[in-house]
Amino acid sequence: MISKNKKKFLTSLQLKKYRILHNAFLAEGHKINHDLLNAGAVCKELYATTEWLKRNSDILPENFSDATDKELKSISNLKSAPEVIGVYEIKTVKPDVRKTGTSLILALDGIQDPGNLGTIIRTADWFGIKNIICSEDTADVYNPKVIQATMGAIARVNVSYTALESFIKNYKKETNMPVYGTFLEGENIYDKELSGKGVIVMGNEGKGIRKEIEKTVTDKLYIPNYPPEAETSESLNVATATAVICSEFRRRVLG
Amino acid sequence: MISKNKKKFLTSLQLKKYRILHNAFLAEGHKINHDLLNAGAVCKELYATTEWLKRNSDILPENFSDATDKELKSISNLKSAPEVIGVYEIKTVKPDVRKTGTSLILALDGIQDPGNLGTIIRTADWFGIKNIICSEDTADVYNPKVIQATMGAIARVNVSYTALESFIKNYKKETNMPVYGTFLEGENIYDKELSGKGVIVMGNEGKGIRKEIEKTVTDKLYIPNYPPEAETSESLNVATATAVICSEFRRRVLG
Repeated sequence: MISKNKKKFLTSLQLKKYRILHNAFLAEGHKINHDLLNAGAVCKELYATTEWLKRNSDILPENFSDATDKELKSISNLKSAPEVIGVYEIKTVKPDVRKTGTSLILALDGIQDPGNLGTIIRTADWFGIKNIICSEDTADVYNPKVIQATMGAIARVNVSYTALESFIKNYKKETNMPVYGTFLEGENIYDKELSGKGVIVMGNEGKGIRKEIEKTVTDKLYIPNYPPEAETSESLNVATATAVICSEFRRRVLG
Repeated sequence: MISKNKKKFLTSLQLKKYRILHNAFLAEGHKINHDLLNAGAVCKELYATTEWLKRNSDILPENFSDATDKELKSISNLKSAPEVIGVYEIKTVKPDVRKTGTSLILALDGIQDPGNLGTIIRTADWFGIKNIICSEDTADVYNPKVIQATMGAIARVNVSYTALESFIKNYKKETNMPVYGTFLEGENIYDKELSGKGVIVMGNEGKGIRKEIEKTVTDKLYIPNYPPEAETSESLNVATATAVICSEFRRRVLG
């Protein structure tokens, strides 16, 4: 049973200002709650159907309650009622140059669409990228639409927000690693030598990578269209471009 | 000026049954209208701001009218009012095995999300795939959300709906070409010999490729995760997986 006040609290977490106020975010549905609980995320409250609670008795947090389909539906963003809704603590990660410098990281420069951001996190998880650094104007990772689109990957990937330009400058100075980005005048990614370490910058859906950030890029890449002379779309969607690029980096090791 | 009746007609095209009834679909915003008009799509009606009409006087169809921001906003699905809304004739393409057999085509087996479908069309356009064959339960390509996500690519890619299983069987018999699909037990796509011709099957977001369609697949592929032993997402999003696969096919030529 979910009280009226509790319902109000839960639905308030759809909005960023209340997520910040309560330092908490919502996760809806089996997959994401299962993955978050397994990954050791701090679950403050969890509401689920009796059936779900029975089936997942081995991973339940301390503070759980049962709820009806109708109650869960009234809180949820999703079209069909989720079996479970969890409230998790937001873990504020400070990007650490020295720690991230030993691997491949993604830097997101103003990604706006929650679906794109979530899909990028899912892709990063698949290709073993553990850290994503976002500019402060990138969409909020704790937006329920983003959480949903990650399909549980948010449990395994660190996402942090920072002043991106100074982060990258500092990163370059401390680690001497390459900074990659895609540009129309970049080099054919298929032929280019790619390191297993460094930063890959992905830009805003409409405007691409900001001028200030572009200046920090050491290696400009390009995903060639086919055939090269054809009239085509101006660009790929940013989440699909991210996938193509990450795949190319990992192919050098896996292929 | 858009009359009350006309407004009713235009908003009705948000729904599939009215799109079928009128054999027409809506395109909202500059990019998609520009691309459709340039590609020679049949524009039945077009409503735009006076400024847009002036700027695009070289590509205007016969039947255009000016409209205010407020009028355009009242019809549109988008958050901000588009400068232009066009009504285009649905061109019903019958998939032709002999025509498509000479190139690479995509077959979509029950893709449900409009954003995914639109993004796949945009990706196909980028990588020179001119024909997409969909199972009859795939999302409707003329849904405004799909049209929007194609970012104009719908003007250059043929999308048709058919009984997918018999289409692929017929295709194999007539052309003897490979049929590719991704499966957990597939071969590492990075190492695999890939033809520039054939069908690439992509499956439903949750259920993957149907058993009946799986039986028609001649070459099972797998996009390896990194590092291979890591715990990771169960899969990539279908639109990003499509991009990685198409990129791999074209790399063999472009790289």
